[in-house]
Amino acid sequence: MKVFIAGVDGYLGWALAQHLTSRSHEVAGADCYLRRDWVAEIGAQSATPILRMTDRLEAFRETFDKNLRFFRGDLSDTDFVMNIFNHFKPDAIVHLGEMPSAPFSMIDVKHATFTHTNNMIGTINMLFAMRDITPDAHMVKLGTMGEYGTPNVDIPEGFFTIEYRGRTDTLPFPRQAGSWYHQTKVHDSNNVMMACRLWGLRSTDIMQGVVYGTRIDAMGDDERLLTRFDYDQCFGTAINRFCAQAVVGEPITPFGKGHQKRGFLPLRDSMQCLTLAVENPPKDPEYRVFNQFEEVYDITELAGKVQKIGSELGLDVVVRNLENPRIELEEHYYNPDHQHLLDLGYKPTSDMEAELRVMLKDLIKHKGRIEARREALLPDIRWRGEREPMKYIDKS
Amino acid sequence: MKVFIAGVDGYLGWALAQHLTSRSHEVAGADCYLRRDWVAEIGAQSATPILRMTDRLEAFRETFDKNLRFFRGDLSDTDFVMNIFNHFKPDAIVHLGEMPSAPFSMIDVKHATFTHTNNMIGTINMLFAMRDITPDAHMVKLGTMGEYGTPNVDIPEGFFTIEYRGRTDTLPFPRQAGSWYHQTKVHDSNNVMMACRLWGLRSTDIMQGVVYGTRIDAMGDDERLLTRFDYDQCFGTAINRFCAQAVVGEPITPFGKGHQKRGFLPLRDSMQCLTLAVENPPKDPEYRVFNQFEEVYDITELAGKVQKIGSELGLDVVVRNLENPRIELEEHYYNPDHQHLLDLGYKPTSDMEAELRVMLKDLIKHKGRIEARREALLPDIRWRGEREPMKYIDKS
Repeated sequence: MKVFIAGVDGYLGWALAQHLTSRSHEVAGADCYLRRDWVAEIGAQSATPILRMTDRLEAFRETFDKNLRFFRGDLSDTDFVMNIFNHFKPDAIVHLGEMPSAPFSMIDVKHATFTHTNNMIGTINMLFAMRDITPDAHMVKLGTMGEYGTPNVDIPEGFFTIEYRGRTDTLPFPRQAGSWYHQTKVHDSNNVMMACRLWGLRSTDIMQGVVYGTRIDAMGDDERLLTRFDYDQCFGTAINRFCAQAVVGEPITPFGKGHQKRGFLPLRDSMQCLTLAVENPPKDPEYRVFNQFEEVYDITELAGKVQKIGSELGLDVVVRNLENPRIELEEHYYNPDHQHLLDLGYKPTSDMEAELRVMLKDLIKHKGRIEARREALLPDIRWRGEREPMKYIDKS
Repeated sequence: MKVFIAGVDGYLGWALAQHLTSRSHEVAGADCYLRRDWVAEIGAQSATPILRMTDRLEAFRETFDKNLRFFRGDLSDTDFVMNIFNHFKPDAIVHLGEMPSAPFSMIDVKHATFTHTNNMIGTINMLFAMRDITPDAHMVKLGTMGEYGTPNVDIPEGFFTIEYRGRTDTLPFPRQAGSWYHQTKVHDSNNVMMACRLWGLRSTDIMQGVVYGTRIDAMGDDERLLTRFDYDQCFGTAINRFCAQAVVGEPITPFGKGHQKRGFLPLRDSMQCLTLAVENPPKDPEYRVFNQFEEVYDITELAGKVQKIGSELGLDVVVRNLENPRIELEEHYYNPDHQHLLDLGYKPTSDMEAELRVMLKDLIKHKGRIEARREALLPDIRWRGEREPMKYIDKS
């Protein structure tokens, strides 16, 4: 299958290119290194050393004996996107090419509007390219579980059938996102859903949980094939930050009460799931939604796991709660469905602790790269707009 | 009250400035004449003659003995918006400054992406200006009934309380818009709702039906104060197009089966409702939704009314159904609530025929301006992307 990966230089994109190639797909990718720029802008860097693209492509060819077709450019440039589709004519598009950080989008009005144009225009460009050039292609679009927010009812996969005042309909499940970034994913979902309905396109919209991990099998032991690992306040998820904090001897910092619940899955399972979506497209025009995660934990349980595996590896890990820079419920009901991928054959790894062990060992090896930017670990971007470092909450 | 009208040169904005001023509010407005450009771009013009802004402002001052404070600029320019808020410090913002045409947004990828950036960035800029400069101000945001689409259940005003799998929550009612334009209004609603929740802002989101009419009382008989009236395939609503067709002797053209149902209200009632929203802000931080319309008709009933009043005025009006350029349900359930404005004291005019009589008389007077651009009456922008004039459907 010919698969085009939008955002191939990113955390998921670079790993997915390897995973799909190892499964004999023909892969092309596009990027213009914006993720590298954003992380540099906020004074951080990937904990894992990342080669420049020329060298990445060289290592890729040596390992897989195949070229990764690479297009350098900006997905919000319509002509760039049309050119790729005309030239490569993908069977599947995996759209990972968006700005993925909630705090980055909350910095100020400039970052909020940039996140909107960057994320949404790229998606619209690809929808038009599909309509006009590859109408039978299938777009696997990366959304986020964060689109749903934390409603007081179960979260279905995209749609629910309800009775209201004596009549029944199947409707999109309401989204209640909590940052400008998350809103752009909601907007994208609405746009992709409409394009499928109006133009007969196919798309799988992936409501993904928090992905963690440094490795997948396809990388082998070649450090040149490692994917990026961000631990800063913007591009590092809670679990990444906790691991980085553990490695450099900083306290692990759940936000607020620390009872926020989220769905998690390791990088290797994210690759497995995205590949299941790519290899099992809807037969007919359809917009379908997969909730993609494995286990639900609250942030305090997560901190406990990092602490436990850290101790095994000789790290002295302290947990201290930090003021919450976000405005979010810190205690809430959370019960999202995640059956569609299991129906397609997804076999969850279901061993967060084993994965944490691999991650922490990789990070210990590159500890110096975290220490060199350790200021990036402490959040100061507040949802209300002030810029002020968070303080520890001293529990009695 | 100090009221800032975003989009003051438009159909609703220019009328609202007069209506609010006649009620002793202090009004400022912004515009950069994009509506004039868009209408010219598609080869049309307002049926009513529209003065340039300098002359509009002069006529305004003569009539109301007060200046309309006018800022010329683009709402998607953050600095422009911040400057207005810093200088004028509004108590209320009425946000009418968006590209309002579904067909225009469906022309091609360029128009789709422009509609997104123009509409959404302007709204985000104003939300940040409210947060940072006038946190107690109230934004009356113009949305559209089209955000809801045509679900098979009743449409509440913004939110509904449902039971799902034995648990209960009050959730935003799902939106299912049918064009890129309508999507931008959905995206805006999501963004405004979030800003109210995160930042404690106040907003009334107006899901407005189709507005028709050429006059409000504040205009008196001064033709210089008339608001624009568009009849072209992009910026003319069905009822406007029907009236223009009747006046120049073209058949009136319901799309498809003609059983699409929509909510309607006359311009003077739109002014009454927007003013009720402005003068009755939520007391505390809140995002509230008003469904703003008066009567529900299907498009064929509407054509019948134009035909009837046209005959009274000596026009020989034929109804011929046209291929539907849109992709939409042509027969569907439609039962939206509209109680919130009635609770605030809204007194509906409830006489579409009287309003049509006024409209048609105004249009007959300016018939030459429609004839001069009559090609703009026939739609050729198709939802699937082709550009091809619609054909009449000959019914047996």
